[in-house]
Amino acid sequence: MLSKQAVAAFDELCEILRPVRLTGNTFRGEPPSVEWGVPFGGLLVAQALAAASATVPEGLWIRSLHAYFIEVGRADQAVDIHVDHVHDGRSTSWRSAKLQQNDRLLLKADMMFSRDSTGLHHQDPMPAAPSPEDLVNVGLALESHDDAFRPWNADSPFDLRYVADPPRIAAASSNHSASSAVWFKANGTSDDRALNAALLAYASDMCMLDSCLRPHRLWFGPTSASGFSLDHSMWFHAPARIDEWILHDQRSPVMENGRGLALGRMFTQSGELLCSVAQLGSIRTTRP
Amino acid sequence: MLSKQAVAAFDELCEILRPVRLTGNTFRGEPPSVEWGVPFGGLLVAQALAAASATVPEGLWIRSLHAYFIEVGRADQAVDIHVDHVHDGRSTSWRSAKLQQNDRLLLKADMMFSRDSTGLHHQDPMPAAPSPEDLVNVGLALESHDDAFRPWNADSPFDLRYVADPPRIAAASSNHSASSAVWFKANGTSDDRALNAALLAYASDMCMLDSCLRPHRLWFGPTSASGFSLDHSMWFHAPARIDEWILHDQRSPVMENGRGLALGRMFTQSGELLCSVAQLGSIRTTRP
Repeated sequence: MLSKQAVAAFDELCEILRPVRLTGNTFRGEPPSVEWGVPFGGLLVAQALAAASATVPEGLWIRSLHAYFIEVGRADQAVDIHVDHVHDGRSTSWRSAKLQQNDRLLLKADMMFSRDSTGLHHQDPMPAAPSPEDLVNVGLALESHDDAFRPWNADSPFDLRYVADPPRIAAASSNHSASSAVWFKANGTSDDRALNAALLAYASDMCMLDSCLRPHRLWFGPTSASGFSLDHSMWFHAPARIDEWILHDQRSPVMENGRGLALGRMFTQSGELLCSVAQLGSIRTTRP
Repeated sequence: MLSKQAVAAFDELCEILRPVRLTGNTFRGEPPSVEWGVPFGGLLVAQALAAASATVPEGLWIRSLHAYFIEVGRADQAVDIHVDHVHDGRSTSWRSAKLQQNDRLLLKADMMFSRDSTGLHHQDPMPAAPSPEDLVNVGLALESHDDAFRPWNADSPFDLRYVADPPRIAAASSNHSASSAVWFKANGTSDDRALNAALLAYASDMCMLDSCLRPHRLWFGPTSASGFSLDHSMWFHAPARIDEWILHDQRSPVMENGRGLALGRMFTQSGELLCSVAQLGSIRTTRP
Protein backbone atom coordinates (compact mmCIF):
# COMPACT_ATOMS: atom_id res chain seq x y z
CA MET A 1 0.00 0.00 0.00
CA LEU A 2 2.68 2.53 1.06
CA SER A 3 5.24 3.72 -1.46
CA LYS A 4 8.93 3.05 -0.80
CA GLN A 5 9.43 6.82 -0.71
CA ALA A 6 6.74 7.28 1.94
CA VAL A 7 8.25 4.61 4.21
CA ALA A 8 11.72 6.08 3.72
CA ALA A 9 10.44 9.60 4.48
CA PHE A 10 8.78 8.41 7.69
CA ASP A 11 11.84 6.42 8.78
CA GLU A 12 14.06 9.43 8.12
CA LEU A 13 11.74 11.69 10.14
CA CYS A 14 11.88 9.26 13.10
CA GLU A 15 15.67 9.24 12.83
CA ILE A 16 15.76 13.06 12.85
CA LEU A 17 13.47 13.05 15.91
CA ARG A 18 16.06 11.10 17.89
CA PRO A 19 18.39 14.11 18.16
CA VAL A 20 22.05 13.33 18.75
CA ARG A 21 23.09 14.25 22.32
CA LEU A 22 26.31 16.26 22.34
CA THR A 23 26.46 17.00 26.07
CA GLY A 24 23.85 16.65 28.85
CA ASN A 25 21.61 19.45 27.59
CA THR A 26 22.80 20.09 24.04
CA PHE A 27 21.69 18.15 21.00
CA ARG A 28 22.22 18.21 17.27
CA GLY A 29 19.19 17.88 14.97
CA GLU A 30 19.95 16.71 11.44
CA PRO A 31 18.22 18.27 8.42
CA PRO A 32 15.89 16.18 6.26
CA SER A 33 17.17 15.08 2.87
CA VAL A 34 14.16 16.59 1.07
CA GLU A 35 14.68 20.34 0.96
CA TRP A 36 11.88 22.87 1.45
CA GLY A 37 13.93 26.05 1.12
CA VAL A 38 13.31 27.02 4.75
CA PRO A 39 13.00 24.56 7.66
CA PHE A 40 9.44 23.30 8.19
CA GLY A 41 8.06 24.82 11.41
CA GLY A 42 6.51 21.57 12.55
CA LEU A 43 9.87 19.85 12.31
CA LEU A 44 11.53 22.49 14.50
CA VAL A 45 8.77 22.17 17.13
CA ALA A 46 9.08 18.37 17.01
CA GLN A 47 12.88 18.54 17.37
CA ALA A 48 12.52 20.85 20.39
CA LEU A 49 10.03 18.47 22.01
CA ALA A 50 12.11 15.38 21.25
CA ALA A 51 15.25 16.93 22.77
CA ALA A 52 13.45 18.27 25.86
CA SER A 53 11.74 14.89 26.38
CA ALA A 54 15.19 13.29 26.61
CA THR A 55 16.08 15.52 29.58
CA VAL A 56 13.12 14.88 31.93
CA PRO A 57 12.87 12.14 34.59
CA GLU A 58 11.34 8.83 33.51
CA GLY A 59 7.54 8.72 33.73
CA LEU A 60 7.03 12.41 32.93
CA TRP A 61 5.12 13.18 29.73
CA ILE A 62 4.50 16.32 27.71
CA ARG A 63 1.36 18.27 28.76
CA SER A 64 1.80 21.57 26.96
CA LEU A 65 4.19 23.34 24.63
CA HIS A 66 4.45 27.01 23.59
CA ALA A 67 6.87 27.92 20.80
CA TYR A 68 7.92 31.11 19.03
CA PHE A 69 9.33 31.06 15.50
CA ILE A 70 12.02 33.76 15.48
CA GLU A 71 14.67 33.91 12.73
CA VAL A 72 14.54 32.20 9.32
CA GLY A 73 16.99 29.33 8.97
CA ARG A 74 18.27 27.03 6.24
CA ALA A 75 16.59 23.71 5.52
CA ASP A 76 19.84 22.03 4.49
CA GLN A 77 21.69 22.66 7.77
CA ALA A 78 21.58 20.90 11.13
CA VAL A 79 20.22 22.74 14.18
CA ASP A 80 21.93 23.04 17.55
CA ILE A 81 19.40 22.43 20.34
CA HIS A 82 20.02 23.68 23.87
CA VAL A 83 17.61 22.62 26.60
CA ASP A 84 17.39 24.78 29.73
CA HIS A 85 16.16 23.04 32.90
CA VAL A 86 13.76 25.79 33.98
CA HIS A 87 12.56 23.92 37.07
CA ASP A 88 12.07 20.39 38.39
CA GLY A 89 9.23 19.95 40.85
CA ARG A 90 8.07 16.83 42.65
CA SER A 91 6.06 15.48 39.72
CA THR A 92 6.39 18.24 37.10
CA SER A 93 9.33 19.50 35.03
CA TRP A 94 9.58 22.62 32.90
CA ARG A 95 12.01 22.90 30.00
CA SER A 96 12.92 25.66 27.56
CA ALA A 97 14.60 24.74 24.27
CA LYS A 98 16.42 27.00 21.83
CA LEU A 99 17.12 25.83 18.26
CA GLN A 100 19.97 27.66 16.54
CA GLN A 101 22.00 27.63 13.34
CA ASN A 102 25.27 29.40 14.22
CA ASP A 103 24.09 32.66 15.81
CA ARG A 104 20.61 32.55 14.29
CA LEU A 105 17.82 31.68 16.76
CA LEU A 106 15.20 29.75 14.76
CA LEU A 107 12.85 28.62 17.54
CA LYS A 108 12.29 28.98 21.27
CA ALA A 109 9.93 26.48 22.87
CA ASP A 110 8.80 26.18 26.49
CA MET A 111 7.30 22.93 27.71
CA MET A 112 5.72 21.31 30.77
CA PHE A 113 5.99 17.60 31.55
CA SER A 114 4.25 15.70 34.37
CA ARG A 115 3.30 12.24 35.58
CA ASP A 116 0.11 10.51 34.52
CA SER A 117 -2.66 11.05 37.05
CA THR A 118 -6.37 10.51 37.52
CA GLY A 119 -9.20 13.00 37.88
CA LEU A 120 -12.18 14.71 36.30
CA HIS A 121 -12.97 14.25 32.61
CA HIS A 122 -15.03 15.90 29.92
CA GLN A 123 -14.46 16.65 26.24
CA ASP A 124 -16.07 18.07 23.12
CA PRO A 125 -17.71 15.47 20.93
CA MET A 126 -15.96 14.80 17.61
CA PRO A 127 -17.52 16.78 14.75
CA ALA A 128 -19.13 14.81 11.96
CA ALA A 129 -16.67 13.96 9.19
CA PRO A 130 -16.51 11.41 6.37
CA SER A 131 -14.28 8.42 6.99
CA PRO A 132 -10.65 8.93 5.87
CA GLU A 133 -10.89 5.75 3.77
CA ASP A 134 -13.50 7.54 1.62
CA LEU A 135 -11.24 10.54 0.94
CA VAL A 136 -8.19 10.96 -1.29
CA ASN A 137 -4.67 12.01 -0.39
CA VAL A 138 -4.05 15.74 -0.79
CA GLY A 139 -1.47 15.06 -3.49
CA LEU A 140 -4.13 13.34 -5.59
CA ALA A 141 -6.70 16.05 -4.80
CA LEU A 142 -4.33 18.76 -6.05
CA GLU A 143 -2.89 16.83 -9.00
CA SER A 144 -4.36 19.11 -11.62
CA HIS A 145 -3.30 22.31 -9.79
CA ASP A 146 0.37 22.52 -10.60
CA ASP A 147 0.98 25.85 -8.86
CA ALA A 148 -0.38 24.59 -5.53
CA PHE A 149 1.62 24.14 -2.35
CA ARG A 150 1.66 20.34 -1.96
CA PRO A 151 4.46 18.91 0.12
CA TRP A 152 2.09 16.37 1.75
CA ASN A 153 1.77 14.03 -1.18
CA ALA A 154 1.71 10.23 -1.03
CA ASP A 155 5.51 10.08 -0.63
CA SER A 156 5.71 12.22 2.53
CA PRO A 157 5.96 10.98 6.17
CA PHE A 158 2.20 11.47 6.61
CA ASP A 159 -0.85 10.67 4.52
CA LEU A 160 -2.97 13.86 4.63
CA ARG A 161 -6.61 13.92 3.46
CA TYR A 162 -8.77 17.04 3.40
CA VAL A 163 -12.38 16.63 4.58
CA ALA A 164 -13.50 19.62 2.49
CA ASP A 165 -11.58 20.69 -0.60
CA PRO A 166 -8.03 22.00 -0.04
CA PRO A 167 -7.92 25.84 -0.07
CA ARG A 168 -6.54 25.91 -3.65
CA ILE A 169 -9.70 24.22 -4.88
CA ALA A 170 -12.12 25.63 -2.29
CA ALA A 171 -11.24 29.19 -3.35
CA ALA A 172 -13.17 28.63 -6.57
CA SER A 173 -16.13 27.01 -4.80
CA SER A 174 -18.72 28.19 -2.31
CA ASN A 175 -17.12 26.93 0.94
CA HIS A 176 -15.59 30.00 2.57
CA SER A 177 -16.13 29.28 6.25
CA ALA A 178 -13.23 29.89 8.62
CA SER A 179 -12.89 26.20 9.39
CA SER A 180 -11.06 23.28 7.88
CA ALA A 181 -10.54 19.64 8.81
CA VAL A 182 -8.05 17.03 7.71
CA TRP A 183 -7.38 13.40 8.51
CA PHE A 184 -3.76 12.34 8.83
CA LYS A 185 -1.88 9.13 9.59
CA ALA A 186 1.83 8.38 9.59
CA ASN A 187 3.29 6.26 6.81
CA GLY A 188 4.90 4.05 9.43
CA THR A 189 4.63 3.01 13.06
CA SER A 190 6.31 3.36 16.45
CA ASP A 191 5.50 2.28 20.03
CA ASP A 192 7.64 5.03 21.59
CA ARG A 193 5.25 7.38 23.44
CA ALA A 194 7.62 10.38 23.41
CA LEU A 195 8.37 9.88 19.69
CA ASN A 196 4.63 9.67 18.95
CA ALA A 197 4.19 13.03 20.74
CA ALA A 198 7.00 14.60 18.68
CA LEU A 199 5.47 13.21 15.46
CA LEU A 200 2.13 14.69 16.51
CA ALA A 201 3.85 18.06 16.94
CA TYR A 202 5.29 17.73 13.42
CA ALA A 203 1.87 16.86 11.98
CA SER A 204 0.09 19.64 13.91
CA ASP A 205 1.74 22.26 11.69
CA MET A 206 0.95 20.63 8.30
CA CYS A 207 -1.93 22.89 7.34
CA MET A 208 -2.74 24.87 10.47
CA LEU A 209 -3.29 28.22 8.74
CA ASP A 210 -5.76 26.91 6.13
CA SER A 211 -8.72 28.01 8.24
CA CYS A 212 -7.38 31.59 8.14
CA LEU A 213 -7.21 31.52 4.33
CA ARG A 214 -10.66 30.15 3.49
CA PRO A 215 -12.78 33.24 4.32
CA HIS A 216 -10.58 35.26 1.96
CA ARG A 217 -10.69 32.67 -0.88
CA LEU A 218 -6.90 32.44 -0.74
CA TRP A 219 -4.42 29.57 -0.75
CA PHE A 220 -0.68 29.35 -0.20
CA GLY A 221 0.85 29.83 -3.65
CA PRO A 222 2.72 32.42 -5.70
CA THR A 223 -0.45 33.96 -7.15
CA SER A 224 -2.53 34.02 -3.95
CA ALA A 225 -1.03 34.24 -0.45
CA SER A 226 2.14 33.66 1.52
CA GLY A 227 2.47 33.16 5.21
CA PHE A 228 4.59 32.01 8.10
CA SER A 229 3.97 30.90 11.67
CA LEU A 230 4.60 33.32 14.53
CA ASP A 231 3.81 31.10 17.50
CA HIS A 232 2.57 27.55 18.07
CA SER A 233 0.93 26.05 21.18
CA MET A 234 -0.12 22.49 21.94
CA TRP A 235 -1.89 20.86 24.87
CA PHE A 236 -1.53 17.06 24.98
CA HIS A 237 -4.59 15.40 26.53
CA ALA A 238 -3.84 11.72 25.91
CA PRO A 239 -1.06 9.55 24.45
CA ALA A 240 -1.33 9.54 20.65
CA ARG A 241 -0.68 6.80 18.13
CA ILE A 242 0.26 8.43 14.86
CA ASP A 243 -0.11 5.15 12.96
CA GLU A 244 -3.89 5.48 13.39
CA TRP A 245 -6.06 8.08 11.64
CA ILE A 246 -6.35 11.41 13.48
CA LEU A 247 -8.89 14.11 12.62
CA HIS A 248 -7.48 17.65 12.94
CA ASP A 249 -10.48 19.97 13.11
CA GLN A 250 -9.35 23.60 12.72
CA ARG A 251 -10.99 26.98 12.77
CA SER A 252 -9.86 30.59 12.73
CA PRO A 253 -11.70 32.81 15.24
CA VAL A 254 -9.89 35.94 14.08
CA MET A 255 -7.45 37.53 11.67
CA GLU A 256 -6.48 41.16 12.23
CA ASN A 257 -4.11 43.14 10.05
CA GLY A 258 -2.74 39.98 8.50
CA ARG A 259 -2.19 38.14 11.79
CA GLY A 260 -4.43 35.06 11.81
CA LEU A 261 -5.15 32.82 14.78
CA ALA A 262 -6.06 29.17 14.15
CA LEU A 263 -7.33 26.77 16.81
CA GLY A 264 -7.24 23.01 16.31
CA ARG A 265 -8.61 19.89 18.00
CA MET A 266 -7.25 16.44 17.22
CA PHE A 267 -9.52 13.42 17.63
CA THR A 268 -8.91 9.69 17.26
CA GLN A 269 -11.24 7.86 14.88
CA SER A 270 -13.17 6.62 17.93
CA GLY A 271 -13.71 10.20 19.10
CA GLU A 272 -11.13 10.73 21.87
CA LEU A 273 -9.79 14.30 22.03
CA LEU A 274 -6.01 13.82 21.90
CA CYS A 275 -4.62 17.30 21.56
CA SER A 276 -5.55 20.99 21.30
CA VAL A 277 -3.50 23.32 19.10
CA ALA A 278 -3.26 27.10 18.63
CA GLN A 279 -1.18 28.92 16.05
CA LEU A 280 -0.70 32.57 15.20
CA GLY A 281 0.45 33.17 11.64
CA SER A 282 1.30 36.12 9.44
CA ILE A 283 -0.52 36.03 6.11
CA ARG A 284 -0.08 38.37 3.14
CA THR A 285 -1.72 38.36 -0.26
CA THR A 286 0.68 37.84 -3.14
CA ARG A 287 -1.85 38.73 -5.83
CA PRO A 288 -0.75 41.60 -8.07
CA MET B 1 -21.15 55.26 41.56
CA LEU B 2 -17.79 53.63 42.40
CA SER B 3 -16.88 52.97 46.02
CA LYS B 4 -13.78 54.63 47.49
CA GLN B 5 -12.35 51.14 48.00
CA ALA B 6 -12.86 50.21 44.33
CA VAL B 7 -11.12 53.36 43.09
CA ALA B 8 -8.27 52.81 45.57
CA ALA B 9 -7.94 49.16 44.53
CA PHE B 10 -7.75 50.12 40.83
CA ASP B 11 -5.25 52.92 41.50
CA GLU B 12 -3.09 50.57 43.54
CA LEU B 13 -3.18 47.95 40.76
CA CYS B 14 -2.05 50.56 38.19
CA GLU B 15 0.76 51.56 40.54
CA ILE B 16 1.86 47.89 40.88
CA LEU B 17 1.77 47.55 37.08
CA ARG B 18 4.39 50.28 36.73
CA PRO B 19 7.19 48.02 38.06
CA VAL B 20 10.19 49.79 39.58
CA ARG B 21 13.22 49.46 37.30
CA LEU B 22 16.29 48.37 39.27
CA THR B 23 18.69 48.00 36.32
CA GLY B 24 18.11 47.88 32.52
CA ASN B 25 16.38 44.50 32.56
CA THR B 26 15.49 43.89 36.21
CA PHE B 27 12.41 45.23 37.92
CA ARG B 28 10.74 45.01 41.30
CA GLY B 29 7.00 44.34 41.46
CA GLU B 30 5.32 45.36 44.71
CA PRO B 31 2.66 43.17 46.35
CA PRO B 32 -0.94 44.39 46.63
CA SER B 33 -2.11 45.52 50.08
CA VAL B 34 -5.09 43.14 50.01
CA GLU B 35 -3.76 39.66 50.68
CA TRP B 36 -5.00 36.52 48.93
CA GLY B 37 -2.74 33.98 50.61
CA VAL B 38 -0.96 33.18 47.34
CA PRO B 39 -0.20 35.69 44.57
CA PHE B 40 -3.03 36.00 42.04
CA GLY B 41 -1.92 34.44 38.73
CA GLY B 42 -3.36 37.27 36.64
CA LEU B 43 -1.29 39.78 38.60
CA LEU B 44 1.93 37.85 37.93
CA VAL B 45 1.15 37.66 34.20
CA ALA B 46 0.33 41.38 34.16
CA GLN B 47 3.57 42.23 36.01
CA ALA B 48 5.59 40.17 33.51
CA LEU B 49 3.91 41.93 30.58
CA ALA B 50 4.32 45.39 32.12
CA ALA B 51 8.03 44.85 32.76
CA ALA B 52 8.70 43.34 29.31
CA SER B 53 6.76 46.20 27.64
CA ALA B 54 9.18 48.65 29.26
CA THR B 55 12.13 46.98 27.49
CA VAL B 56 10.95 47.02 23.85
CA PRO B 57 11.53 49.80 21.28
CA GLU B 58 8.86 52.50 21.05
CA GLY B 59 5.97 51.64 18.73
CA LEU B 60 6.09 47.89 19.39
CA TRP B 61 3.00 46.37 21.02
CA ILE B 62 2.20 43.03 22.61
CA ARG B 63 0.83 40.41 20.13
CA SER B 64 1.02 37.21 22.14
CA LEU B 65 2.07 35.93 25.53
CA HIS B 66 2.64 32.39 26.85
CA ALA B 67 3.22 31.93 30.59
CA TYR B 68 3.88 28.98 32.89
CA PHE B 69 3.00 29.10 36.58
CA ILE B 70 5.80 27.22 38.33
CA GLU B 71 6.37 27.55 42.11
CA VAL B 72 3.93 28.88 44.68
CA GLY B 73 4.90 32.25 46.11
CA ARG B 74 3.78 34.57 48.89
CA ALA B 75 1.19 37.26 48.27
CA ASP B 76 2.72 39.66 50.80
CA GLN B 77 6.17 39.80 49.20
CA ALA B 78 7.52 41.74 46.22
CA VAL B 79 8.63 39.87 43.11
CA ASP B 80 11.94 40.31 41.30
CA ILE B 81 11.38 40.45 37.55
CA HIS B 82 14.16 39.70 35.09
CA VAL B 83 13.53 40.32 31.40
CA ASP B 84 15.66 38.44 28.87
CA HIS B 85 16.02 40.04 25.42
CA VAL B 86 15.46 36.86 23.41
CA HIS B 87 15.75 38.60 20.04
CA ASP B 88 15.18 41.98 18.39
CA GLY B 89 14.22 41.86 14.74
CA ARG B 90 13.50 44.70 12.34
CA SER B 91 9.93 45.23 13.52
CA THR B 92 9.45 42.45 16.08
CA SER B 93 10.92 41.85 19.54
CA TRP B 94 10.74 38.72 21.69
CA ARG B 95 11.10 38.84 25.47
CA SER B 96 11.16 36.24 28.23
CA ALA B 97 10.40 37.30 31.80
CA LYS B 98 11.04 35.40 35.03
CA LEU B 99 9.30 36.41 38.25
CA GLN B 100 11.04 35.27 41.41
CA GLN B 101 10.84 35.56 45.20
CA ASN B 102 14.35 34.79 46.44
CA ASP B 103 15.18 31.47 44.74
CA ARG B 104 11.56 30.54 44.04
CA LEU B 105 10.52 30.84 40.37
CA LEU B 106 6.85 31.86 40.38
CA LEU B 107 6.28 32.55 36.69
CA LYS B 108 8.02 32.37 33.32
CA ALA B 109 6.40 34.29 30.47
CA ASP B 110 7.47 34.58 26.83
CA MET B 111 6.12 37.42 24.71
CA MET B 112 6.18 38.79 21.18
CA PHE B 113 5.85 42.51 20.38
CA SER B 114 5.57 44.10 16.92
CA ARG B 115 4.60 47.28 15.10
CA ASP B 116 1.04 48.03 14.05
CA SER B 117 0.43 46.98 10.45
CA THR B 118 -2.37 46.57 7.95
CA GLY B 119 -3.75 43.48 6.25
CA LEU B 120 -6.51 40.90 6.02
CA HIS B 121 -9.32 40.84 8.57
CA HIS B 122 -12.02 38.49 9.79
CA GLN B 123 -13.43 37.63 13.20
CA ASP B 124 -16.07 35.58 14.99
CA PRO B 125 -19.28 37.48 15.65
CA MET B 126 -19.93 38.31 19.31
CA PRO B 127 -22.24 35.76 20.95
CA ALA B 128 -25.59 37.01 22.19
CA ALA B 129 -25.43 38.24 25.80
CA PRO B 130 -27.54 40.50 27.98
CA SER B 131 -26.25 44.04 28.48
CA PRO B 132 -23.88 44.38 31.49
CA GLU B 133 -26.07 47.19 32.82
CA ASP B 134 -28.86 44.63 33.27
CA LEU B 135 -26.69 42.27 35.35
CA VAL B 136 -25.43 42.50 38.93
CA ASN B 137 -21.89 42.47 40.24
CA VAL B 138 -20.64 39.02 41.21
CA GLY B 139 -20.32 40.13 44.84
CA LEU B 140 -24.03 40.91 44.94
CA ALA B 141 -24.88 37.70 43.07
CA LEU B 142 -23.02 35.63 45.66
CA GLU B 143 -24.02 37.61 48.76
CA SER B 144 -26.04 34.80 50.26
CA HIS B 145 -23.34 32.17 49.56
CA ASP B 146 -20.84 32.82 52.32
CA ASP B 147 -18.52 29.92 51.46
CA ALA B 148 -18.08 31.11 47.87
CA PHE B 149 -14.83 32.32 46.35
CA ARG B 150 -15.58 36.00 45.78
CA PRO B 151 -12.61 38.32 45.52
CA TRP B 152 -14.22 40.24 42.64
CA ASN B 153 -16.74 42.17 44.68
CA ALA B 154 -17.70 45.82 44.22
CA ASP B 155 -14.54 46.98 46.00
CA SER B 156 -12.04 45.24 43.68
CA PRO B 157 -10.14 46.79 40.72
CA PHE B 158 -12.71 45.36 38.30
CA ASP B 159 -16.49 45.17 38.24
CA LEU B 160 -17.26 41.55 37.22
CA ARG B 161 -20.74 40.45 36.14
CA TYR B 162 -21.67 36.87 35.23
CA VAL B 163 -23.95 36.42 32.21
CA ALA B 164 -25.21 33.06 33.54
CA ASP B 165 -25.15 32.29 37.25
CA PRO B 166 -21.71 32.02 38.90
CA PRO B 167 -20.64 28.34 39.29
CA ARG B 168 -21.53 28.34 43.02
CA ILE B 169 -25.17 29.04 42.13
CA ALA B 170 -25.24 27.27 38.75
CA ALA B 171 -24.21 23.98 40.40
CA ALA B 172 -27.69 23.76 41.94
CA SER B 173 -29.45 24.70 38.69
CA SER B 174 -29.77 23.10 35.27
CA ASN B 175 -27.02 24.99 33.37
CA HIS B 176 -24.10 22.58 33.17
CA SER B 177 -22.65 23.42 29.77
CA ALA B 178 -18.88 23.78 29.50
CA SER B 179 -19.16 27.47 28.75
CA SER B 180 -19.32 30.63 30.78
CA ALA B 181 -19.36 34.34 30.01
CA VAL B 182 -18.69 37.42 32.10
CA TRP B 183 -18.66 41.15 31.52
CA PHE B 184 -15.90 43.15 33.19
CA LYS B 185 -14.86 46.79 33.35
CA ALA B 186 -12.14 48.48 35.38
CA ASN B 187 -13.10 50.67 38.31
CA GLY B 188 -10.95 53.45 36.88
CA THR B 189 -9.40 54.67 33.64
CA SER B 190 -6.09 55.04 31.82
CA ASP B 191 -5.00 56.16 28.34
CA ASP B 192 -1.72 54.20 28.47
CA ARG B 193 -1.95 51.47 25.80
CA ALA B 194 0.67 49.21 27.41
CA LEU B 195 -0.96 49.57 30.85
CA ASN B 196 -4.36 48.73 29.34
CA ALA B 197 -2.83 45.53 27.90
CA ALA B 198 -1.36 44.60 31.31
CA LEU B 199 -4.72 45.27 32.99
CA LEU B 200 -6.38 43.05 30.37
CA ALA B 201 -3.90 40.29 31.26
CA TYR B 202 -4.82 40.70 34.93
CA ALA B 203 -8.54 40.52 34.13
CA SER B 204 -8.13 37.54 31.78
CA ASP B 205 -7.40 35.28 34.76
CA MET B 206 -10.34 36.36 36.96
CA CYS B 207 -12.56 33.34 36.31
CA MET B 208 -10.91 31.48 33.44
CA LEU B 209 -11.44 27.98 34.84
CA ASP B 210 -15.19 28.39 35.49
CA SER B 211 -16.05 26.73 32.18
CA CYS B 212 -14.12 23.63 33.31
CA LEU B 213 -16.14 23.43 36.54
CA ARG B 214 -19.68 23.76 35.18
CA PRO B 215 -20.07 20.32 33.55
CA HIS B 216 -19.14 18.76 36.91
CA ARG B 217 -21.50 20.98 38.97
CA LEU B 218 -18.50 22.20 40.96
CA TRP B 219 -17.31 25.61 42.13
CA PHE B 220 -14.11 26.84 43.76
CA GLY B 221 -14.72 26.50 47.50
CA PRO B 222 -13.73 24.32 50.44
CA THR B 223 -16.63 21.89 49.98
CA SER B 224 -16.45 21.56 46.19
CA ALA B 225 -13.25 22.03 44.16
CA SER B 226 -9.80 23.57 44.29
CA GLY B 227 -7.61 24.46 41.38
CA PHE B 228 -4.63 26.35 40.11
CA SER B 229 -3.40 27.54 36.73
CA LEU B 230 -0.67 25.62 34.91
CA ASP B 231 -0.21 27.79 31.84
CA HIS B 232 -1.79 30.93 30.39
CA SER B 233 -1.74 32.19 26.79
CA MET B 234 -3.05 35.41 25.27
CA TRP B 235 -3.23 36.75 21.73
CA PHE B 236 -3.88 40.51 21.53
CA HIS B 237 -5.85 41.43 18.40
CA ALA B 238 -6.58 45.12 19.02
CA PRO B 239 -5.78 47.82 21.60
CA ALA B 240 -8.11 47.44 24.59
CA ARG B 241 -9.74 50.05 26.79
CA ILE B 242 -10.40 48.45 30.15
CA ASP B 243 -12.61 51.36 31.24
CA GLU B 244 -15.25 50.08 28.80
CA TRP B 245 -17.28 46.87 29.23
CA ILE B 246 -15.58 43.74 27.83
CA LEU B 247 -17.35 40.41 27.34
CA HIS B 248 -15.15 37.40 28.16
CA ASP B 249 -16.81 34.39 26.53
CA GLN B 250 -15.19 31.18 27.78
CA ARG B 251 -15.55 27.48 27.09
CA SER B 252 -13.75 24.31 28.06
CA PRO B 253 -13.22 21.89 25.14
CA VAL B 254 -11.62 19.27 27.38
CA MET B 255 -10.63 18.18 30.87
CA GLU B 256 -8.62 14.98 31.23
CA ASN B 257 -7.44 13.52 34.52
CA GLY B 258 -8.08 16.79 36.32
CA ARG B 259 -6.29 18.99 33.75
CA GLY B 260 -8.84 21.36 32.23
CA LEU B 261 -8.33 23.56 29.19
CA ALA B 262 -10.34 26.79 28.91
CA LEU B 263 -10.48 28.99 25.80
CA GLY B 264 -11.66 32.60 25.98
CA ARG B 265 -12.61 35.35 23.54
CA MET B 266 -12.87 38.98 24.67
CA PHE B 267 -15.22 41.32 22.82
CA THR B 268 -15.94 45.04 23.15
CA GLN B 269 -19.56 46.00 23.65
CA SER B 270 -19.70 46.93 19.96
CA GLY B 271 -18.54 43.44 18.98
CA GLU B 272 -14.83 43.83 18.19
CA LEU B 273 -12.75 40.77 19.11
CA LEU B 274 -9.95 42.21 21.30
CA CYS B 275 -8.16 39.20 22.63
CA SER B 276 -8.07 35.38 22.63
CA VAL B 277 -7.08 33.49 25.79
CA ALA B 278 -6.18 29.88 26.63
CA GLN B 279 -5.50 28.46 30.06
CA LEU B 280 -4.66 25.00 31.33
CA GLY B 281 -5.59 24.44 34.96
CA SER B 282 -5.38 21.65 37.49
CA ILE B 283 -8.71 20.99 39.20
CA ARG B 284 -9.41 18.61 42.07
CA THR B 285 -12.62 17.90 43.95
CA THR B 286 -12.49 18.79 47.64
CA ARG B 287 -15.73 17.05 48.48
CA PRO B 288 -15.39 14.39 51.18
